[in-house]
Amino acid sequence: MVLGIDIGGTTIKCALVSPTGEITEKEVIDTKEAADKGEFIEKLGEIIQGYKTKNPSLKGAGIGFPGLISKDRESIVGLANIPSVENQNVVQKLASILPGFTIKIENDAKCATMAEKIFGDPSLDNFMFITLGTGVGSGLVLDNKMFLGAKGNATEIGHMFTTTGKVLEHEVGLNQLGAYGVSCLAKPEFSDSVLQGKTSLSPKDMYDAAKQGDALSLHVFERAGTLIGETLVNVMRVLDIETFLLGGGVAGALEFFEPAARKKIIAELGTGYYTDKLVIKRAKLENEAGILGAASLVYHQN
Amino acid sequence: MVLGIDIGGTTIKCALVSPTGEITEKEVIDTKEAADKGEFIEKLGEIIQGYKTKNPSLKGAGIGFPGLISKDRESIVGLANIPSVENQNVVQKLASILPGFTIKIENDAKCATMAEKIFGDPSLDNFMFITLGTGVGSGLVLDNKMFLGAKGNATEIGHMFTTTGKVLEHEVGLNQLGAYGVSCLAKPEFSDSVLQGKTSLSPKDMYDAAKQGDALSLHVFERAGTLIGETLVNVMRVLDIETFLLGGGVAGALEFFEPAARKKIIAELGTGYYTDKLVIKRAKLENEAGILGAASLVYHQN
Repeated sequence: MVLGIDIGGTTIKCALVSPTGEITEKEVIDTKEAADKGEFIEKLGEIIQGYKTKNPSLKGAGIGFPGLISKDRESIVGLANIPSVENQNVVQKLASILPGFTIKIENDAKCATMAEKIFGDPSLDNFMFITLGTGVGSGLVLDNKMFLGAKGNATEIGHMFTTTGKVLEHEVGLNQLGAYGVSCLAKPEFSDSVLQGKTSLSPKDMYDAAKQGDALSLHVFERAGTLIGETLVNVMRVLDIETFLLGGGVAGALEFFEPAARKKIIAELGTGYYTDKLVIKRAKLENEAGILGAASLVYHQN
Repeated sequence: MVLGIDIGGTTIKCALVSPTGEITEKEVIDTKEAADKGEFIEKLGEIIQGYKTKNPSLKGAGIGFPGLISKDRESIVGLANIPSVENQNVVQKLASILPGFTIKIENDAKCATMAEKIFGDPSLDNFMFITLGTGVGSGLVLDNKMFLGAKGNATEIGHMFTTTGKVLEHEVGLNQLGAYGVSCLAKPEFSDSVLQGKTSLSPKDMYDAAKQGDALSLHVFERAGTLIGETLVNVMRVLDIETFLLGGGVAGALEFFEPAARKKIIAELGTGYYTDKLVIKRAKLENEAGILGAASLVYHQN
C-alpha cells in the first residue's frame, strides 16, 4: 500500500492506493483550514503518521501540489493557494518528522500523467497527458521518466500561444469554450441551433447537441480541435512525440474535436515519420486521478 | 585530435579539430559527386581512413547530417539531399570498415549546438542554440546532454506556428525577412526610408540602415523579434529553459530584435521564476561551427 495525497485549491484528498490502483480509507480535508494554521507541512506529517500507524506496512507517500516544484523534487517553488509553503523543502521537513519513510512530491498535472503510466498503461514509455478542463494542464513521460525540463516545470502547454494570439487554455478551457458557443448563437448560420434561447453553454450542452448534429456545437468543437491540433504540432516539433492522452471534462467530446486536430496536424506535418503512429485518445483514468497520481510517484521505479 | 565531417547540401567539409577547437587539414568535397556514386557510406569510410592513416592518434570521427537521425544515433531516418543513405545504419557500416574506431553521427543543427557547449562555453548545462539563417534550426542541451525527444528529432523550432499562422522560419528566415522589408517600402509611413528604390533587401541592408535609425528597418527587426519572442515563450512553456544562444546570419542584427523578443516574453511570463535569469545572446562560434560541432560529438563525454 502507498498513501496518495492530492492537494487541491479547496480540498486535500488522501487515500491508500494498492499496487493495482484500488483506493481505500479515503479522507477529505479542507485545504484552507489546513493551510490557515500556518504549519501546513506539519499537518501533512500528522496525516501521513496517522495512516502509517494504522497501516504499518505502508511503503511511502506521494503528494501532488498544484504549483511549481524544484528540479530536485524536494521543494515548492510556487504555490498560489498556500503561499506559506513556498520555498520550503517539503521532502526534508517531512523526512525529519518521519525518518526513513519514502516521501515523493510532484506537480498535480504531472501526477495525473504518472497515474496514466502506472495504473493506465505501463507499456507507454513516451506520451503526453493533457487535461482539458477549466484549465489545460499537461505532463510528459519521456524515455519512461517524468520530463522536468531544465528547471523542473516543463510542459505547461495550456499557456502556449495559438494562432489566435491567445494561449490554448484561454481558447479551449471549459468556460471559454462555453463563452465561444454563446457568441455563436448570434450568428445567422446558427439561427436554427437547438441551443438557441440559452444564455450560457457548457461543453456538455454542446456535446449533447452535437450528438443530434447541431451545427453550432459541431463548429465549436471543430474550432477547438483545430487550435488543439496547432498546439500539438508545436509540441511535436519540440518533443518529437506521437502519443497524446486526453483527460478532463472537455475530453469527453473527443469524438467531435479529434478529427479537426488530426486534420490540422497532418496538414502541417504530412504523413510519414511524424504522423504514421500518431495517437490522440482518451486517458484511461478519470476519477481519483489525483490520488492515484500521487501514489504512482512511489510505485514508479525510474 | 578528432575528425569533424560536416555534410551539407552542396559540400562536405572535413577537418581535424584539436581539443581546443583548432582546425587543420581541412578538405572540401562536392556532396553531389560523393552521393551520385551510390556508395556514400563507403566514401565516408575512405575519407576517415585517409585522415586516420596520416594521423594514427586520431580519437574518432563525428559526422553531421542535414536530416533526421534515429534515436539510437546510428541510422539516418530522413535525408533529402542523399536519399540513398536513408534507413542505413551509418555507424554500424562504418564500424565494419573501421573496426574499433569511434564514430558518432548527429543532425547538423544539434552538432552546432554541441559545438557551443564544447568549444563555446562548457559551463552551460542547459541552453537552446538557435540558428537564424535561410532556415531556422535549433538544438537543446538539457542536463548536459543533447536532448533528442521521444523519437530522436526534437527541437525543430523553425517549424513551430507563430500567431500569424505561419511557422517561424517562414517569417524570420533570411529571405522572408527581406521580402517583408520590400513589402514595407510601399507603406506611406516608410516613404522616407533610406532603402527606398531598392527592389530586394537583405537583413544586412536593413541592419546597416537600422544603424542609421531607418524606421522601416527598425520595424522589420522589431516585428521579427516579437515573433521570435512568441516562439521562445512556447519553447519555455514546454522545456522550462532560460538560456538561448542565437547564431546564423540574422543573429548579427540581435541588437535590433532582441529588445522586442524580450518584451514579448516578459509581457507573457512576467518577471520572476521564468524570466529573472533569461539570457538571449549571440552564439560564440560562427565559422566552421559545422566541423567543430561534428568533432564535438566525440569530445563530449555525456
